[in-house]
Amino acid sequence: MESKLILITNDDGVSAQGIEVLTNLMLQLGEVVVVAPDSARSGAACAITCTQAITLRRRADMEREGLSVYACSGSPVDCVKLGLEQCCSRQPDLLVSGINHGDNASCSIHYSGTMGAVLEGCMKGIPSIGYSLRTLKHKCDFQPYADHILRIARHVLYDGLPQDVCLNVNFPEVEELAGLRVCRMGRGRWVQEWISANNPRGMNAFWLTGRFLNLEPHNEDTDYWALDHGYTAVTPIRLDMTAYDVMHSLSPLTAI
Amino acid sequence: MESKLILITNDDGVSAQGIEVLTNLMLQLGEVVVVAPDSARSGAACAITCTQAITLRRRADMEREGLSVYACSGSPVDCVKLGLEQCCSRQPDLLVSGINHGDNASCSIHYSGTMGAVLEGCMKGIPSIGYSLRTLKHKCDFQPYADHILRIARHVLYDGLPQDVCLNVNFPEVEELAGLRVCRMGRGRWVQEWISANNPRGMNAFWLTGRFLNLEPHNEDTDYWALDHGYTAVTPIRLDMTAYDVMHSLSPLTAI
Repeated sequence: MESKLILITNDDGVSAQGIEVLTNLMLQLGEVVVVAPDSARSGAACAITCTQAITLRRRADMEREGLSVYACSGSPVDCVKLGLEQCCSRQPDLLVSGINHGDNASCSIHYSGTMGAVLEGCMKGIPSIGYSLRTLKHKCDFQPYADHILRIARHVLYDGLPQDVCLNVNFPEVEELAGLRVCRMGRGRWVQEWISANNPRGMNAFWLTGRFLNLEPHNEDTDYWALDHGYTAVTPIRLDMTAYDVMHSLSPLTAI
Repeated sequence: MESKLILITNDDGVSAQGIEVLTNLMLQLGEVVVVAPDSARSGAACAITCTQAITLRRRADMEREGLSVYACSGSPVDCVKLGLEQCCSRQPDLLVSGINHGDNASCSIHYSGTMGAVLEGCMKGIPSIGYSLRTLKHKCDFQPYADHILRIARHVLYDGLPQDVCLNVNFPEVEELAGLRVCRMGRGRWVQEWISANNPRGMNAFWLTGRFLNLEPHNEDTDYWALDHGYTAVTPIRLDMTAYDVMHSLSPLTAI
């Protein structure tokens, strides 16, 4: 049987701890190609680089048997696009992104570079998973999550995912997980998002910050509830964002 | 009756022709605040700026009665976030983004800074619309679209949109529109996306390019079909990307 080919990326950069942990786990499942940003790209969403040329640099110093590593000057989505055309000998059997330092539950998926890469893999027809850990630390203990990471990856690798659907997996920061829940995206938004920055030239300047407001903290079927209660949250995500049930109510617009 | 307050942004920058046209049209409907990137941010998606302070500069030279204008050094989503906290006296009644030079139909919505801003407005509870024109030109004749732009904006301003739903409006480049269709996102993907860039220092370098592959060219209910046949495509978009119908099939993951 041909060995499985797994493409790995992230948004924290090729040297982040999370991608190193993820790479070591995926090497248990097959051959790995890492194509990741050369530095941190947090909050990159599905951004693509249209106005500059992108560079791709082989990182032979990070390679070993079954592992190729490339650092790319672009966004996480650029890494997937370029990785597929330039670094993979064939269509990968699986794409994994992360492990992100910080969760990407609820509306945060829209801002997430980790999940941007996952959506891109999904658009390209590759079964794709994003892994994120709710933490503020740069150095984390990822050991509590190894079993779930592998279990989910194996499931997707061997059973696949439906067309145009990918997975958003979020872990709480705990010593022992309460279990795994299949969830929906909870409703929430960021509030109080800016603090004024001192600027020596007198321009108005601001740093993005903010506080997450959970709009349905008591609903047990959401990703946020799962994280708040010590569970791994697995949320299936669809590329098609059409609000089908709203289409009919817009029909007055079509009248001349 | 209090005048309506309309927040406008885009991803082509505060000086683009599309935002000027949109601003002039929206001034027919209420008071306008423009908060737009200080230069082009095409392909910015929902990206946010986490690693730098953002500057905000009033553009008094572009203002007139009922119109305030700000240029922001951040992404389109940053413009919405900062505009709401720093430039609007109250929650706007409507957010419009565009008019983008280039369509954002099918999967392109995921990469679009125009639509990133619209999703952000929607997350903040503001009825939000993105307008894009399928064109490669910098200077366009937007006159054929004025009536549809106003009709859709008036509908949303006075009838609202369902919670967590926004609109993605795309125009074909025609002298006379065939009509307006309420559509779903068509399936498609970008292919052959990179060309090699000469690089004097010998590094591998690439420019993003590509060709759109329509995966369902004959389906008349898609946004792409509408554009291909001369219609304005109005697609309702939902923030919640959960693939609800897939949740059950993932339940084997929850077994210990």
